[in-house]
Amino acid sequence: MTRPPLKALQLLAVAGLPLVEPGDDLADLITTAIAKQGDALHDGDIVVIAQKVVSKSEGRYLMLASVAASPQARELAARTGKRPEYVEAILSESDEIVRCKGELIIAAHRLGYVMANAGIDESNIDQQDGDKVLLLPENPDASAATLRRDLCARSGAEVGVIVNDSFGRPFRNGVVSVALGADGVPSLSSQITMPDLFGRPLKVTEVAIADQIASAASLLMGEADEGQPVIVVRGFASDAPRCPASTLVRPKSRDMFR
Amino acid sequence: MTRPPLKALQLLAVAGLPLVEPGDDLADLITTAIAKQGDALHDGDIVVIAQKVVSKSEGRYLMLASVAASPQARELAARTGKRPEYVEAILSESDEIVRCKGELIIAAHRLGYVMANAGIDESNIDQQDGDKVLLLPENPDASAATLRRDLCARSGAEVGVIVNDSFGRPFRNGVVSVALGADGVPSLSSQITMPDLFGRPLKVTEVAIADQIASAASLLMGEADEGQPVIVVRGFASDAPRCPASTLVRPKSRDMFR
Repeated sequence: MTRPPLKALQLLAVAGLPLVEPGDDLADLITTAIAKQGDALHDGDIVVIAQKVVSKSEGRYLMLASVAASPQARELAARTGKRPEYVEAILSESDEIVRCKGELIIAAHRLGYVMANAGIDESNIDQQDGDKVLLLPENPDASAATLRRDLCARSGAEVGVIVNDSFGRPFRNGVVSVALGADGVPSLSSQITMPDLFGRPLKVTEVAIADQIASAASLLMGEADEGQPVIVVRGFASDAPRCPASTLVRPKSRDMFR
Repeated sequence: MTRPPLKALQLLAVAGLPLVEPGDDLADLITTAIAKQGDALHDGDIVVIAQKVVSKSEGRYLMLASVAASPQARELAARTGKRPEYVEAILSESDEIVRCKGELIIAAHRLGYVMANAGIDESNIDQQDGDKVLLLPENPDASAATLRRDLCARSGAEVGVIVNDSFGRPFRNGVVSVALGADGVPSLSSQITMPDLFGRPLKVTEVAIADQIASAASLLMGEADEGQPVIVVRGFASDAPRCPASTLVRPKSRDMFR
């Protein structure tokens, strides 16, 4: 019994979220903001939240003044025009520098994401108290799982959660949003080409469902902080097994471009 | 005067489209199917259509029996286990073979897309009349422009059009849908990080809007033929200038991974 195809999908921005501080209860902030809109989470909703907000709630700040730059960091900093302590932070978060050209450092984050600056964000961070950067969550799949548990508990609805972030990519201009973390979502789904209309052999294609949901939500987010960092995706349904966003990371050994 | 952020976005599947044949009037098929659903196109709607359907309407079939395989095609065919005539078709559509491993041929299509098999599809093609493959549209941006003109004329609504297709990608598992062609859409949009909440210098980020819309629509499409190859995206608005999907193709000279 195959599920009928989806007829419609709605994406709804959650307005009125406050700036998030370390220790803030994201599930509380989100459900309160949704209630103020006269809405509530429904079974099957997927809550997409910007990485930056999750990192802030987890206090993933790093004071650059506390970082000692290694010789490698100093060398890369000189090549790219970045601060040596910032480059040291990138190296600490990474397994490998994949490419380095001009100002750009493409690193393989310790969790496998290949991305600019190992995902360490400098923008929109309050500089009042010194040079501070924001790291990715320690474990974005775990962050998603925690938020999902809390959202389900508060709302009584069975929801999914995706933590998204914008990535540059080879071959194509412009960033797109992908799923760094996910829980309760079929992040990577095997789509079997069937029924084949003309009797050819079945073919299995893996589809990056969570990345596509992350990109869809990004259309409403704008820049995460002053924008709308939480989007509710309503109406998505799939029989595919749920799996974390880590399934979307291709190991180096199976990658033709590393 | 900045446009307020989007509050909501709707994606609606167009049901009941017939299998498309060469010469079919896509705008007629689409507007008729939408009318049967009791709906109509609205100003600002973006119609996302699967590449396969556009190629079929344009009769982009190639009979493999008519293809003479070159020595290079025979060699690549032997390495990948593919039919020499099929590999010859891939070579003819491409400027360069970017990677080749196992059964996989990643080619740079003459229009710059880096993709498996230069986008030549073997699946879901009626094999009654011999070995036939389906090429990408000759010029997907032009296909989008033609369809947009026809849809606007028939519906009276000012709509955008995106022709999408699923691509594999480096570093991450699973395919995602991207925009091969587009018209009436800000395919690549410069997002200026502003207002910066803490007074840091403005930063310009290019966002692949059309790719993200293509991915969003793909969530409802399923496999294009037996699935739902046309999706209406309702509620997207942007002040960014419209530009074709060709702006999303990064030239080889500016790519760090080629």
